[in-house]
Amino acid sequence: VLGGGFAGLHAVKRLRRTPVEVLLIDRTNHHLFQPLLYQVATAGLSPNDVAHPLRAIFKHQRNAAVLMAQVRGLRPAERQVVLRRGDPIEYDWLIVALGSRHSYFGHSEWERAAPGLKTLDDALAIREKILVSFERAERAAARGQAVDPGLLTFVVVGGGPTGVEMAGAIAEIARQTLRRNFRFIDPKDTRVFLVEAQEFLLPPFPVELRESARRQLEGLGVDVRLGTMVVAIDESGVELEGPDVDAATGDARRRERIATDNVIWAAGNEVPSLLDDLGIERDRQGRVPVGPDLSIAGHPEVFVVGDACRFEQDGRPLPGLAPVAMQQGKHAARCVAADLDGGARRPFRYADRGTMATIGKARAVAWIRGLRFSGLPAWLAWSLVHVLFLIGFRNRLSVMIEWIYLFFTGQRGARLLYGQSLRRIED
Amino acid sequence: VLGGGFAGLHAVKRLRRTPVEVLLIDRTNHHLFQPLLYQVATAGLSPNDVAHPLRAIFKHQRNAAVLMAQVRGLRPAERQVVLRRGDPIEYDWLIVALGSRHSYFGHSEWERAAPGLKTLDDALAIREKILVSFERAERAAARGQAVDPGLLTFVVVGGGPTGVEMAGAIAEIARQTLRRNFRFIDPKDTRVFLVEAQEFLLPPFPVELRESARRQLEGLGVDVRLGTMVVAIDESGVELEGPDVDAATGDARRRERIATDNVIWAAGNEVPSLLDDLGIERDRQGRVPVGPDLSIAGHPEVFVVGDACRFEQDGRPLPGLAPVAMQQGKHAARCVAADLDGGARRPFRYADRGTMATIGKARAVAWIRGLRFSGLPAWLAWSLVHVLFLIGFRNRLSVMIEWIYLFFTGQRGARLLYGQSLRRIED
Repeated sequence: VLGGGFAGLHAVKRLRRTPVEVLLIDRTNHHLFQPLLYQVATAGLSPNDVAHPLRAIFKHQRNAAVLMAQVRGLRPAERQVVLRRGDPIEYDWLIVALGSRHSYFGHSEWERAAPGLKTLDDALAIREKILVSFERAERAAARGQAVDPGLLTFVVVGGGPTGVEMAGAIAEIARQTLRRNFRFIDPKDTRVFLVEAQEFLLPPFPVELRESARRQLEGLGVDVRLGTMVVAIDESGVELEGPDVDAATGDARRRERIATDNVIWAAGNEVPSLLDDLGIERDRQGRVPVGPDLSIAGHPEVFVVGDACRFEQDGRPLPGLAPVAMQQGKHAARCVAADLDGGARRPFRYADRGTMATIGKARAVAWIRGLRFSGLPAWLAWSLVHVLFLIGFRNRLSVMIEWIYLFFTGQRGARLLYGQSLRRIED
Repeated sequence: VLGGGFAGLHAVKRLRRTPVEVLLIDRTNHHLFQPLLYQVATAGLSPNDVAHPLRAIFKHQRNAAVLMAQVRGLRPAERQVVLRRGDPIEYDWLIVALGSRHSYFGHSEWERAAPGLKTLDDALAIREKILVSFERAERAAARGQAVDPGLLTFVVVGGGPTGVEMAGAIAEIARQTLRRNFRFIDPKDTRVFLVEAQEFLLPPFPVELRESARRQLEGLGVDVRLGTMVVAIDESGVELEGPDVDAATGDARRRERIATDNVIWAAGNEVPSLLDDLGIERDRQGRVPVGPDLSIAGHPEVFVVGDACRFEQDGRPLPGLAPVAMQQGKHAARCVAADLDGGARRPFRYADRGTMATIGKARAVAWIRGLRFSGLPAWLAWSLVHVLFLIGFRNRLSVMIEWIYLFFTGQRGARLLYGQSLRRIED
């Protein structure tokens, strides 16, 4: 099993009572609960609240071993996985659950100025960038210098769940968490933009909830720019191309430059190019098409699950969401068990149990079994589901306490700068 | 006020109602609760459990501002503090609370192989080193290679509280936390050495408790080497010079080399050389002698407090402990207030409310108002006091939960490897 995310984790767990030896390979030593990673980036949670050591998860599963390693290649013909170091590993079945990285749509040079959010390293880098910006602004103001407006301007690109959550959390940091923290700047002067190329936020939701999300974000002071493309990003700002201010004039496009030191990229996914080794033509986002049982054409022993998998259901490819990955991981494991029992593999079908996105304190949208919720009820549902799905009792308790504390005080415990941060403030 | 440790923090707090403008300068943005830092290094707590943002601490103290900056020099004649960047800062009173770093007794080349534990960066580096060692050992064993015995050998140098705590925690990780986590190595094969040059551990304690601490450590499987000097440290091991095995033969010294990838330095403190700028001759550990009011000779407006201060009481210099630093910080602030009121400065006197050190789960020693405790009662007292003295309700609650969880399960939540760790395991 390659990858210890939602898909890989649930595949290994499901194989517990199957008479196979399981090897789980991951680049880190932990499972990461990605839906809450934005809270690490915004100093609300600390890394160990959203990560759980893989070895601890599988300590009682005797048929599972964990290896920290970087996968360099796949050889489906030889049934081998190639690692960066050491001998290739042979397999009878392979479950590929390697997830995705952010896609810059061919502008990989944007990554430096506009980091994405997929790993703990990403989250800690974004957290540092946000905190350093406020420190730099305060430092300049204390010395009587003009404060570079880019320091207190944040631009989040991408109106999916991660973008909405990041924009909302940054607005809350500025308005609540940092209140009275500075003597020379007022964090309320912070401007937060959320830029989305489509005409709406949160594509998986019905129109009414998309609109509600926009209104809730605007209520927090976020400047939501819909139908707006990012055409350039550099160290000092972004260039946007949006609809004309005067909507009556029709299609004319307007260019605008926003000076900012803080661009956060939350748009588009891209699947690792390693998957080319499978020899299957991939779709535009790099996903690998799979059959009804999630295995690839010509290699029934190779499954691709999670973000890297293209699986159409009711005429549309399934989105890259945690519940999809979990169910697919389990399904691939069930197919392995069926092979051993001599039974037939069943076709996969995703059971959608609802979709939610949070915006801020008591602000969220939820769409569960056709019912639409927004505001406090949606936020409570979101909180409950995310706490329940966290791995480990300790993490659940710790996250619950952080949230209750944040709810009542607005304080974020993980606002820490150390290491090289001072250099970034002084220079 | 230079430094946001125990001394600096309490100095600023005490100045709350004094009609002065206070500027607190620190290299980081947080107060660090150093007595629990070893628990970050041993993956029991996460950084934000033991650190609290200085700006959050002082958000309601209107006369206090915080500046993140590196102090480069002191000019007592001009009443100026020189920063690495920006104009010098003028002061009417200066409270120097810069703490100490580890001293390698002239062997600064040992630092690379034997890191000390003073900052969050130090703690995270040691945590990574410990976790990487187990991963490397498992990786070698899984590939059928011989496991380098140095990987599972840990040498802690220094028998003060930090050394005792580190050695005990590493032994617990090996015996409890990592149980059943690996498939090819047995973490119980881990060897932990605690090396101390003097003939006893924990110098501030009475003999009976020193002995108790040694027995409790040995009960955890730690190999305690008293009267043993470290004479060399390199990347692959340490060289020790100890008493002869056969005690009957007297003074003959025995040399021994221990192969280890993991040396942790917890011996000796050294005060930053920046304090030379004060023009006062410092003692052997670099501490600055102060008068009864904690100010330096010739400059009643300059106070030196905390680890950097040499203050004799009852014929002996006070040790570098958190309670000493807190009381000294408060005292310096009181002197400033007295100057403004036209009152006389009172002489400082340290009120010793007890000393404690922990060794592991239900293992500790405590010496409180002449009473001696060890084992579970001492451990409960230690836990209670450390939770109470933590800054911030959230941190108290979070640490309490972590400890209760650790007590019952042996699990340590902060066992995370990311970033460059994989390279260190594979190469």
